[in-house]
Amino acid sequence: MNKTKKVKIRNVTIGGGNPVAVQAMTKTFTSDVQKTLAQIRQLETSGAKIIRLAIPDKEALAGFEKIRQKTKSPLVADIHFDWRLALAAIGAGADKLRINPGNIGDPEKVRRIIEAARAAKIPLRIGLNSGSIPANFQPAKHRRAASLTQAALFYIKMFENFNFYDLVVSVKSTDVCETVAAYRQLSKKCPYPLHLGITEAGPGTAGIIKSSVGLGILLHEGIGDTIRVSLTDDPVKEVEVGYQILKSLGLYKKGIEIISCPTCGRCQIDVVKIAGHLETVSRGIIRPLKIAVMGCVVNGPGEAREADLGIAGGKGEGLIFKKGKIIKKVKEKDIIKNLLSLIKD
Amino acid sequence: MNKTKKVKIRNVTIGGGNPVAVQAMTKTFTSDVQKTLAQIRQLETSGAKIIRLAIPDKEALAGFEKIRQKTKSPLVADIHFDWRLALAAIGAGADKLRINPGNIGDPEKVRRIIEAARAAKIPLRIGLNSGSIPANFQPAKHRRAASLTQAALFYIKMFENFNFYDLVVSVKSTDVCETVAAYRQLSKKCPYPLHLGITEAGPGTAGIIKSSVGLGILLHEGIGDTIRVSLTDDPVKEVEVGYQILKSLGLYKKGIEIISCPTCGRCQIDVVKIAGHLETVSRGIIRPLKIAVMGCVVNGPGEAREADLGIAGGKGEGLIFKKGKIIKKVKEKDIIKNLLSLIKD
Repeated sequence: MNKTKKVKIRNVTIGGGNPVAVQAMTKTFTSDVQKTLAQIRQLETSGAKIIRLAIPDKEALAGFEKIRQKTKSPLVADIHFDWRLALAAIGAGADKLRINPGNIGDPEKVRRIIEAARAAKIPLRIGLNSGSIPANFQPAKHRRAASLTQAALFYIKMFENFNFYDLVVSVKSTDVCETVAAYRQLSKKCPYPLHLGITEAGPGTAGIIKSSVGLGILLHEGIGDTIRVSLTDDPVKEVEVGYQILKSLGLYKKGIEIISCPTCGRCQIDVVKIAGHLETVSRGIIRPLKIAVMGCVVNGPGEAREADLGIAGGKGEGLIFKKGKIIKKVKEKDIIKNLLSLIKD
Repeated sequence: MNKTKKVKIRNVTIGGGNPVAVQAMTKTFTSDVQKTLAQIRQLETSGAKIIRLAIPDKEALAGFEKIRQKTKSPLVADIHFDWRLALAAIGAGADKLRINPGNIGDPEKVRRIIEAARAAKIPLRIGLNSGSIPANFQPAKHRRAASLTQAALFYIKMFENFNFYDLVVSVKSTDVCETVAAYRQLSKKCPYPLHLGITEAGPGTAGIIKSSVGLGILLHEGIGDTIRVSLTDDPVKEVEVGYQILKSLGLYKKGIEIISCPTCGRCQIDVVKIAGHLETVSRGIIRPLKIAVMGCVVNGPGEAREADLGIAGGKGEGLIFKKGKIIKKVKEKDIIKNLLSLIKD
């Protein structure tokens, strides 16, 4: 992993080799304190380490002030256009601000935000998006990645000129290849933690896949200190997908990993049913555990042996493996029962 | 993209810079001709370019013979252990064979398969999996990637010694990082097309994410000529996920791409509903079309302008963009209707 500077957001430190923090953003109106707090609780339960809220106006700010009293989670205020809202959010107890300096306006207003953050000892994120690249960095066609990086480096320099270094930076594009190119360029020149995301990845499976491919490529190269998956979906889903991306690369190890064959014309047991059942019951399990559910003798015993717990299907029955050794042969109907009791052990 | 040799599977050529072919495998018993054919039709409709069937025994072989008469799709016979089944599958009209030479047994049997493939002018895939690494290549702990590559290179050499070069190679692991490492090593030394997959990626979203991350990393490096996504799920889903992975990297451009914001406390229109609706109705559309559905003024106009068609939400209304220009302001309830009629145009 690339070593970046450490940045502390309340009780969570990102950068400098710390675990990649999965963050989330609420999708309720921040002015609606009840609904927003309820969503924050869900996000906390699902494992979100940092929670961001939009503060587009005074009503949202009033909501944020109340919400701040009710949670100890690190809260990030997302502010656009209005530097006075930024100052007020810092005053209300934000643990970090995300701004796009390009839409705050003249540097003097940006400086006021920086001074307030310095006084409150909180970091700022310079958060750029392909949809809002500042006018003076507007890209030539097909050059959005370079524009994002150049704009980010320009603002980093501006903040450093104000002697402010408590920074996180993001350069999200809706396009996976652009996002990858922008972060690769940025990571070579930027010592600050990078916040990764494919912005506006969209609905359904397509959004999950775009986020997985884009963040996967970068994280595998050691780029990225915190991630936010942006789906047109329940924010809890975004957190779950974030953790699954980290898990797929060995960057997060808790919980059950199911290795299960796709089934084919050789399959001897109902792998879909068994794997689906295990997936459902295993949601709450935190201990790392690799379970293999395999339908036949081709790859079955090999994978079952490699897992902590494995089943390799035969005709109407299955061989159960534990830590590489066969411990039992059971009838197909008893497979789930047996696996569950072994998981409980 | 890495230039590999070209290999022809019936009417589909992979390698040498051809588009990455998405393949599938049937999950029915191959002996059940009706069910298998029905699944093949579904896979053909979903865009599978190459279809693989398991032939574990004589009953499956008999099924395969009949199925072969009923489809023009390239069919790959998946054979393990029994070299005589391999010969019979070639005789029955297989367009390619996938074997793991390690479980065929002595080299003389492998040679018999090679001679039959040569006579029938069909390619062979050397298909290795982490669950069935041949005994003499069994890895030391945590060295499965290197073992997979070494075994593949050993068999490639064996086939070349028999003057057979019509090859495709795969080295799939259940582990994303192992798979990436194995294919990277292999691609440096292997001139043949590579068939990519994360084997036994498992059920649900986790399987989709593992496949997206693993194949995404490799494809973005130009590694991979054909892909198969292995999910414990409907095989049509595997094909859809395969195309979405390619699309996310710009390696497949047909159909609608939805850029939609994740919504937040600034969102002014029902982005979830609009994007979900568009996703459903756009499934059958082949023409490439980028549509942005954005909830507010921060990134909305910017992304809507970049898309072929875009909507940027305001209070109870939306601005519709076409090819970068605002063409209409419509009430929220009329957004879907307007977008659909513009898509039809």
